[in-house]
Amino acid sequence: MRILIALGGNALISEKAERTYEAQYKVANEAMAKLYDVLQNNEVVLTHGNGPQVGDILLRNEQPVDGIPSMPLHACGSMSQGLISEILIDAYGSLSRNGKQMISVFSRALVSSDDKAFHSPSKPIGRFYPKEEADYLAKKYGWSLKNTSNGTWRRVVPSPMPQKIMEEEAVKKLLDSGFIPISAGGGGTPVVKNGNRIEGVEAVIDKDLASSVLAHGIGCSNLVILTDVEGAYRNYGTHDSERIGKIKVSEVEELYRKGEFGSGSMGPKILASTEFIRGGGKLAVISSLNNAGKAVSGGSGTVIIPG
Amino acid sequence: MRILIALGGNALISEKAERTYEAQYKVANEAMAKLYDVLQNNEVVLTHGNGPQVGDILLRNEQPVDGIPSMPLHACGSMSQGLISEILIDAYGSLSRNGKQMISVFSRALVSSDDKAFHSPSKPIGRFYPKEEADYLAKKYGWSLKNTSNGTWRRVVPSPMPQKIMEEEAVKKLLDSGFIPISAGGGGTPVVKNGNRIEGVEAVIDKDLASSVLAHGIGCSNLVILTDVEGAYRNYGTHDSERIGKIKVSEVEELYRKGEFGSGSMGPKILASTEFIRGGGKLAVISSLNNAGKAVSGGSGTVIIPG
Repeated sequence: MRILIALGGNALISEKAERTYEAQYKVANEAMAKLYDVLQNNEVVLTHGNGPQVGDILLRNEQPVDGIPSMPLHACGSMSQGLISEILIDAYGSLSRNGKQMISVFSRALVSSDDKAFHSPSKPIGRFYPKEEADYLAKKYGWSLKNTSNGTWRRVVPSPMPQKIMEEEAVKKLLDSGFIPISAGGGGTPVVKNGNRIEGVEAVIDKDLASSVLAHGIGCSNLVILTDVEGAYRNYGTHDSERIGKIKVSEVEELYRKGEFGSGSMGPKILASTEFIRGGGKLAVISSLNNAGKAVSGGSGTVIIPG
Repeated sequence: MRILIALGGNALISEKAERTYEAQYKVANEAMAKLYDVLQNNEVVLTHGNGPQVGDILLRNEQPVDGIPSMPLHACGSMSQGLISEILIDAYGSLSRNGKQMISVFSRALVSSDDKAFHSPSKPIGRFYPKEEADYLAKKYGWSLKNTSNGTWRRVVPSPMPQKIMEEEAVKKLLDSGFIPISAGGGGTPVVKNGNRIEGVEAVIDKDLASSVLAHGIGCSNLVILTDVEGAYRNYGTHDSERIGKIKVSEVEELYRKGEFGSGSMGPKILASTEFIRGGGKLAVISSLNNAGKAVSGGSGTVIIPG
């Protein structure tokens, strides 16, 4: 089977864990042990989140250092791709004696400059600022900042829909050749067409939505989104809460429209899954990393099928 | 022809230029314009330096920021690969309408833990420290620090010989498939074998030596090292100074042994070239970026041939 596996943050770092290189290596190494057989026995492309890593890079980047210009957000995302590539390959490599080789391709996610997200930036990133500094930054850099619950302000950036992973042909070629490609790290570096140039843009890309378009682009039959919960729930947070098992795409779309999954983490996972199935995919699974082995063929988690 | 082109720092940033993303984009865009036809008409792998970029990442990394651990040097190198990948692909892409696609592969350079460089760290990196702080850091992190000419101290790290670019098979596959791969950025992230693990190590890799082993590994006939001078010189710095044109590898080795090229920038370029020819390469060229078009087939610069 040709499968795209999207690794959630918990495959790289536990929520409150220290974020040293070695700590991240250990978490990734445990994740890779759980995935090892799946990686050997299928054609797998890996994608991954980058929240904590790009957050750290960004905080360092916002700290003034004499003579060193700050890099734009999209370039910080590119740096996080390099960092996480090393961690994942290091973590996988120590388990693999004669297994397939993992290869990371620097990846960009094409978005439309007309995407409505550019008119309503919503994703908070970077530091918390007092009001005066927030006003100054808004004026100086043209940033959008929003009041947070504790009276401080934070930069918000758009999260546009990825249309395509620009590197999909190369990823496909590597997959065809027996490698385990890593692509669309952190959703991919967001780029827009601007005349002849396809240039970075100040935005973040949801990694599950990016995974869905990549999975479609390279002809995967299965999209497997691994996270820290067992799947999606109906009536989440009420006493009628019930995990969804196998479900038709039309039914889950109906639940999505009713706002059943929220706009936080699960909403984009559901949207990524339904888009994948509507684009011709056979199986979309949202499952925990611990059950990865069963999840890849729909034996665990929330399993969305055509129909 | 199958060619490896190693881009020197001047293809990415001018020595004293500002280092914003856009400034680096512009320099890279000019470099890509000079290389465009060469890239379309040959099978080319690109490698590049990362000195100023990893220097900036490192300086930010050494600045204490609450709750954010510093990353090891090798991970800073990995981050620089992501950053420079974006810049080069952005710069090339704006020139290319229907040309080949440039694809960057995250790359590691395998070095031997027995390399004698580990006993005599020599490459200065990062900040300049006063003596007391240097002593503290040496104790805390086990760093080697050396007295610089102005009475401050600076961390020094080993520069071991790269034995192999771990990703050479994938790079070869992409080249065979008509892509322009970027690999061995900044010499590649240095790794050593440690039991089952192939792990990052605190070192820097000379990008020209890494280019030489990669060129050999993927079967290039030509190694082209582009820099800001027209080639290597005999009697450099004297009034007998004379640029070397076409020369046999045995002759240039003789000059190298006599210390004709110094240990700074030209020495490693010559060593990279002679190693490449001794390993079976047909042509190794050291030339300026401006003459790249002629240089690829030996029509410019210092041209080292078998014999």
